[in-house]
Amino acid sequence: MDGSTVKASEHHKIRADLLISGDFVLTFNEGKEVLEKGAVAVTGDRIVAVGETSRLAEEIEAKEELDACGCLLMPGLINLHTHAAMTCFRGLADDLPLQEWLHEHIFPAEATYVSEDNVYWATLLAVVEMIKSGTTTFCDGYFYEDGAARAVAASGIRAVLGQGVVDFPAPGIPDPRINLKAAEAFVFRWQGKSPRLMPSIFCHSPYTCSPETLIGAKDICREHEILFQIHLAETRTELEETQQRYGHRPVHHLANLGLLDAQTICHHAVMVNDEEIELLAHSGVGVSHNPESNMKLASGVAPLPKMLAAGVKVGLGTDGCASNNNLDIFQEMDTAAKLHKVHQGDPALSSALQVAAMATNGGAAALGMSPRLGSLEPGKKADLIVIDLNQPHLTPMYEPCSHLVYAARGADVRDVIIDGSIVMRERQLLDVDEQEVMAKVREIAEGIRTKQ
Amino acid sequence: MDGSTVKASEHHKIRADLLISGDFVLTFNEGKEVLEKGAVAVTGDRIVAVGETSRLAEEIEAKEELDACGCLLMPGLINLHTHAAMTCFRGLADDLPLQEWLHEHIFPAEATYVSEDNVYWATLLAVVEMIKSGTTTFCDGYFYEDGAARAVAASGIRAVLGQGVVDFPAPGIPDPRINLKAAEAFVFRWQGKSPRLMPSIFCHSPYTCSPETLIGAKDICREHEILFQIHLAETRTELEETQQRYGHRPVHHLANLGLLDAQTICHHAVMVNDEEIELLAHSGVGVSHNPESNMKLASGVAPLPKMLAAGVKVGLGTDGCASNNNLDIFQEMDTAAKLHKVHQGDPALSSALQVAAMATNGGAAALGMSPRLGSLEPGKKADLIVIDLNQPHLTPMYEPCSHLVYAARGADVRDVIIDGSIVMRERQLLDVDEQEVMAKVREIAEGIRTKQ
Repeated sequence: MDGSTVKASEHHKIRADLLISGDFVLTFNEGKEVLEKGAVAVTGDRIVAVGETSRLAEEIEAKEELDACGCLLMPGLINLHTHAAMTCFRGLADDLPLQEWLHEHIFPAEATYVSEDNVYWATLLAVVEMIKSGTTTFCDGYFYEDGAARAVAASGIRAVLGQGVVDFPAPGIPDPRINLKAAEAFVFRWQGKSPRLMPSIFCHSPYTCSPETLIGAKDICREHEILFQIHLAETRTELEETQQRYGHRPVHHLANLGLLDAQTICHHAVMVNDEEIELLAHSGVGVSHNPESNMKLASGVAPLPKMLAAGVKVGLGTDGCASNNNLDIFQEMDTAAKLHKVHQGDPALSSALQVAAMATNGGAAALGMSPRLGSLEPGKKADLIVIDLNQPHLTPMYEPCSHLVYAARGADVRDVIIDGSIVMRERQLLDVDEQEVMAKVREIAEGIRTKQ
Repeated sequence: MDGSTVKASEHHKIRADLLISGDFVLTFNEGKEVLEKGAVAVTGDRIVAVGETSRLAEEIEAKEELDACGCLLMPGLINLHTHAAMTCFRGLADDLPLQEWLHEHIFPAEATYVSEDNVYWATLLAVVEMIKSGTTTFCDGYFYEDGAARAVAASGIRAVLGQGVVDFPAPGIPDPRINLKAAEAFVFRWQGKSPRLMPSIFCHSPYTCSPETLIGAKDICREHEILFQIHLAETRTELEETQQRYGHRPVHHLANLGLLDAQTICHHAVMVNDEEIELLAHSGVGVSHNPESNMKLASGVAPLPKMLAAGVKVGLGTDGCASNNNLDIFQEMDTAAKLHKVHQGDPALSSALQVAAMATNGGAAALGMSPRLGSLEPGKKADLIVIDLNQPHLTPMYEPCSHLVYAARGADVRDVIIDGSIVMRERQLLDVDEQEVMAKVREIAEGIRTKQ
């Protein structure tokens, strides 16, 4: 091949902003293809090519190259359920009966210490923790959610942010009669402000929101084409109370109110029977599975294998830091894979691939964002993570997905790219001052501690 | 104060080799005392003082000081049950029915690839992984255990190493008639060779060892005053087979053979009823609880809360890498704390403190080493770890033990001291070439992969 040919072929090279090449690329595309010695090319906020490194290096001319030799590339993880600002209550009260935990510790602390500024700092701490453990999108619900929105805008992460709604006085909304107005105002303030930020409304539960409140909230969501979120069928107490008050189990109660559709996410779905699983599947709602929180609060074990078999769109969540107590989706994957095996007495249930797919494809589907998120494919948003495989606990390597679920941990994430931008490189966050955020949350905690 | 007074008081200072000072010292002494701004002084292989840093700095003159500002000090973790060399099968086969997993994957791979040299390298990899996640003592069982002994001798970790015994041809012991002789020869070769290495005999189980083999092995253990180990009551199949063959449940079967005493460790104890729990408690045997392995293999949930209430000496174990798939006791603590809550429907069960005590005091008691290991107290062996608290997922801090169990992970361990020597500093191992060990095990795995 002479010089002119090389020149000519170089002229035909596709330009890209960033080319990342690693030992393995877990695409999580429909065929769950795994490429050895693969690469991903990014332009702007999108993936433009995925393929063998040797081919992409020939075809693509990138402004910047990220060498992930010895690493695995995969889509960023999706944390489908959390209350990010609750990082400031991490470890405040553990190992207590549920009612004592809620009424004597969490609610009083929230009543006193939840302010927009505290929500900003505590959410920013959560964002730092999530990015450092490979989460690139999270779905949140809390009060003073403007604080969370400012944290998301500042940090580079992607999020669905649900302003909390309950029928009693809440942080920031002392008069519950205006809870829906406040939620709608939040949606107005943030919709369309950033491609990384999707406002939402989070009705706390069927036992803290009246049917009127639930219907009103869903109407606002329909009008603005945003997601409606709710805690549903989390505990036996909720199941029994809902049956007593409304004559129906929680999922049926919501179905009767016309709230179950593809723009609704139900969190937990622990207390659901076969008929309800069918309802969840056919209505197209998203469901978050939060095994560590359900275990710690002794809520129960959600029928995950049945939900997956029925085709329910299930993603994984950590829940808030007060009931977990970290936001590491790697640990959640490991627990989800193991819990259902022992619960059903079948070691073939909840395979590593199924669980990893929940943390990527499943979360994206539940959010209604499958066309944009959850896999490494041309045209999708460039949200991806680099996992360092050159570590004792990831050696040797027979099957990448097995390592992802059963051996890896959040600390193994080396680099994180969200919306086409590198937000963490070699475990250093580029846009957030980690030490400042920790110092601010320690200050908030000092106040909480002295009042306990 | 004049110069001469200072000089005089300095003359009275106690000399020590090493003084480590941190933000919190979790002593795990009888009162489970936690010191804020505390320090530990070490001379030779022993702890000589534990107390407030201000006091120890006045009283002690140390050759070397380790500043663990922003960190937590605690006793090194004890992994009470593993098969260290099985790191080379990490992720080889997951999510399979137990019999298929064992007979089609693990046993054939073991038959072909277990050699003394491979056991040396694969155990060394396990040791590196364990030190890097805060384990300072492990209790092992495998074949070609001389390889494991060489790895322990080379690495600086502390271990009880059990030569495996079964009544059929095994790696290194093609003729089962000499299995006890081979085990005794192993004990001879290693007893008294290193203060960090205690040989032991590991009879695989009541279904792979005849009563004669079990009694013979225990006799050798009694003669040499070493620990006898066995997998016991791990699965329902074992329970039913033992009842069918011997007319008794597994724990009773062992009791009838006279094998239950304070120098015996039973691994798993999943299928034990109330009467058997009483037997385990009164006989003084040690029990390892391995929740992640029991979950992954769908073996069942051990009645941990009942065992602890009855006073059984329970420690925590990871089991081997083929059924976990890592050796991180932090994950095991988190899982142990959460699993029993959901299993029994009581969020107050398996508290963080109880679980952390199992990973320290409990393991030491099960090994019969409470006078030497498991807590930070003067006179005990200097096995301790430094955990870096200055991290997003450990911020803020209300209760150190809560963080240890529910939020921390192996990667948070910064420094490790075993037998008075610093073996890891700032996450760098001082005595083992991590890259070399990983490269060797990758080579072994290449052979295993091509035969699968």
